[in-house]
Amino acid sequence: MHIVSNYNSLPTTLQHRRQKLTELVKTPVILWSGESVGRNFPANPFPFRASSHFLYFAGLPLENAAIRLEEGKLELFMDDAPAEATLWHGEMPTREEIAAAMGADRAYPLTELRGKTANAATVAVQNFKTYQQQCQLLNRTVALANAPEGIDLVLAKAIITLRSCHDSEAIAELRKAAAVAIAAHKAGMKATSTAKTEAEVRGAMEGIIIAHNMTCAYSSIVTVHGEVLHNEHYHHPLQLGDLLLADVGAETALGWASDITRTWPVSGRFSPTQRDIYDLVLAAHDACIDKIRPGIEYRDIHLLGATVIAEGLVNLGILKGNPADLVEMDAHALFFPHGIGHLLGLDVHDLEDLGDLAGYEEGRIRSDRFGLGYLRLDRPLRAGMLVTIEPGFYKVPAILNRPDFRNKYGNVVNWERLAQFADVRGIRIEDDVLVTESGTEVLTADLPNKAEEIEGLCGDRQHAIARDRYI
Amino acid sequence: MHIVSNYNSLPTTLQHRRQKLTELVKTPVILWSGESVGRNFPANPFPFRASSHFLYFAGLPLENAAIRLEEGKLELFMDDAPAEATLWHGEMPTREEIAAAMGADRAYPLTELRGKTANAATVAVQNFKTYQQQCQLLNRTVALANAPEGIDLVLAKAIITLRSCHDSEAIAELRKAAAVAIAAHKAGMKATSTAKTEAEVRGAMEGIIIAHNMTCAYSSIVTVHGEVLHNEHYHHPLQLGDLLLADVGAETALGWASDITRTWPVSGRFSPTQRDIYDLVLAAHDACIDKIRPGIEYRDIHLLGATVIAEGLVNLGILKGNPADLVEMDAHALFFPHGIGHLLGLDVHDLEDLGDLAGYEEGRIRSDRFGLGYLRLDRPLRAGMLVTIEPGFYKVPAILNRPDFRNKYGNVVNWERLAQFADVRGIRIEDDVLVTESGTEVLTADLPNKAEEIEGLCGDRQHAIARDRYI
Repeated sequence: MHIVSNYNSLPTTLQHRRQKLTELVKTPVILWSGESVGRNFPANPFPFRASSHFLYFAGLPLENAAIRLEEGKLELFMDDAPAEATLWHGEMPTREEIAAAMGADRAYPLTELRGKTANAATVAVQNFKTYQQQCQLLNRTVALANAPEGIDLVLAKAIITLRSCHDSEAIAELRKAAAVAIAAHKAGMKATSTAKTEAEVRGAMEGIIIAHNMTCAYSSIVTVHGEVLHNEHYHHPLQLGDLLLADVGAETALGWASDITRTWPVSGRFSPTQRDIYDLVLAAHDACIDKIRPGIEYRDIHLLGATVIAEGLVNLGILKGNPADLVEMDAHALFFPHGIGHLLGLDVHDLEDLGDLAGYEEGRIRSDRFGLGYLRLDRPLRAGMLVTIEPGFYKVPAILNRPDFRNKYGNVVNWERLAQFADVRGIRIEDDVLVTESGTEVLTADLPNKAEEIEGLCGDRQHAIARDRYI
Repeated sequence: MHIVSNYNSLPTTLQHRRQKLTELVKTPVILWSGESVGRNFPANPFPFRASSHFLYFAGLPLENAAIRLEEGKLELFMDDAPAEATLWHGEMPTREEIAAAMGADRAYPLTELRGKTANAATVAVQNFKTYQQQCQLLNRTVALANAPEGIDLVLAKAIITLRSCHDSEAIAELRKAAAVAIAAHKAGMKATSTAKTEAEVRGAMEGIIIAHNMTCAYSSIVTVHGEVLHNEHYHHPLQLGDLLLADVGAETALGWASDITRTWPVSGRFSPTQRDIYDLVLAAHDACIDKIRPGIEYRDIHLLGATVIAEGLVNLGILKGNPADLVEMDAHALFFPHGIGHLLGLDVHDLEDLGDLAGYEEGRIRSDRFGLGYLRLDRPLRAGMLVTIEPGFYKVPAILNRPDFRNKYGNVVNWERLAQFADVRGIRIEDDVLVTESGTEVLTADLPNKAEEIEGLCGDRQHAIARDRYI
């Protein structure tokens, strides 16, 4: 907890957040941080990750703590470490020191919380053991986070309002997370020429994140099988003709995330077919970012991305027809089956624990259309929102081989032409885009995304060629 | 789950383990693997880590699965992935394919387990949600793993008998884990000359583990404050006069661990005082390993290490008196307050979820002596056991400043002499030692531990000097 001393502006930041909350929620609010869970025995836990809602209002990743917010006041509940813990963990800040660092009005041992839970709203935490404590202390069954009820629903909506538009302190942390993810991607591109497996590239990338004393914001995807959307295998060998898709993000010590995807050629040079598809995905990416500004519907950004992809695929002879009609019939989703992106903040899919209450404007529900149902965000964009823009092109066997799709889209896909793009399995380009009053700021803009720039960042192609000769 | 196809000997290995279990346990046995837990929302989980007991008898890290063992037969209970999962996760092996890879006699959907739980023994898993399922399906309150009762106690004792002496398949995996940890430590030493923080060295080390498609077996310790025994901070700058202590181990895809500590000078050269203490810790390390053979008491190995340390500290003028007497009064523990090591296997502290039932021979309990109470293993060693040997020297303020210790040990410590070793805060040397019929085999022997060898592995000293000039 050395970070206690590193954030002098924290009390002011937290005070502003509490004040805004007070305008929206009239009941007391209690938020729990959770506790670490054992991997295979209690003394060997997974790294502790505090609840994001707790982090937003408490600022610091305190384990096994709770905060109580009422009328703009902050009370901290946590126990001091037992005296014998200093032998193993060294001197630790006291509860009072931590409370001072947060600007808390009062601090108490955890047991004192028992008497202060009346009428309090909360959000169910992910940690199951802590969740049971929440229910016990509040003396009611707290509904799970994705289906809050009563005063908890009021709180959840207020938190969504606050957390979906970032304050300047949050943006400062998000910039740090972006900078480290950029460094990781550059290291990955450079390492590819000498790497023999996906795992080696992953090691180079995550090594950079660890070296900056951050953690991965999510399980990295580093794969030559980009067509598996959430591929978490890293054992495949790298071969000269492969594209490598890397979706890797960093998380700062205070919990703020970045989320970047780049796709680069193992050989250091895109083949002509790879380049065609790459440029098409980049065109969709750029068109979407160009269009973002406060007030625009994120759904329309998604449909714009889909349209640019459909148009590009028509130009390449893979799809046949009018792009708008193709999107209308979800033909784009044969190759771009996911949403254009999502909110980003303390969670990589920000606020996703609250379900579509966060992602979808009140009164809207998920579409059952194949080309829209995976959209995670359907709201008008506002200044301060941070969203990813991540169009892609994939040849997913589970989609392209579906008999009903073969039937429905048989006339609009030129399967022979598609077969000529045999060396493209999956391409995605993802950046983190802050909505500003005047339009956008791309927090990840320092990482190039043009094909020739990517080639320039890849390691020496001769290494890759030499490696492939000998394996 | 590509590893399904990589372990052709798995069915035979598992069959041998089941046969041995059958000799010791007459009831059916059901073991659960557990499930992944959400970090901050359900779709962003910590990496899944199967229960070690499940891994031992099931071989593969299957999520949300159970096995039932009875009279040497193996039944697998798990659900096939839902069809829509192929979109996100690609083609996955079916339950039947997995069952074949394990050599299971039958395989069923998870719900079928409900009818097959009568009289079954189990071990409580770490995962809290799965633990509740255990209790529900077995229709009884399963005691926590560290305090098993009735048939579960019989099972726990049998598992301890089996798992504490490794078969050749386990040893093959443990060798792989050791080899990768060795590579990580070499990379850490090399990286130190240009690194500016502990985190950068950690990144270099863990990057190697990730590159080999393994995970860290535990939270790495990479610190210039080795006197904090479980230091998990990585923010300190590296300074020329510092020693860096790195306790970093790897875990194979099947869950087998390594555990290595080395301590090296940031500058690439030990100072004379650092070298004196380093050589003393190494002498204790070597003496302990020399003595290990089947039949010897691990407690005696610990006391031997303590005696060598006491003797060395007398020779250096830090302690005063007869080494045997000093150990008798626990004076060694002022500087070497932990045990000489522990069992190593599927868990880094192997079987520690079962508490001292695993570590302590029946009828023995933890000593309340300061110099013995932290010993994790008190059993006669047997061929096939893998233990760590990890003596150390630390100047822990929480120990050395304790008024009662100042009083008790005032006459045997030369505090002025101790003050001359100001540039030594913590040194530990840890290797993984397999007990063989004829003595020992050090699985981590390929990583040098002599001071001059360590210096040879460290990066160019001139880099370190140049770096310090400019920061």
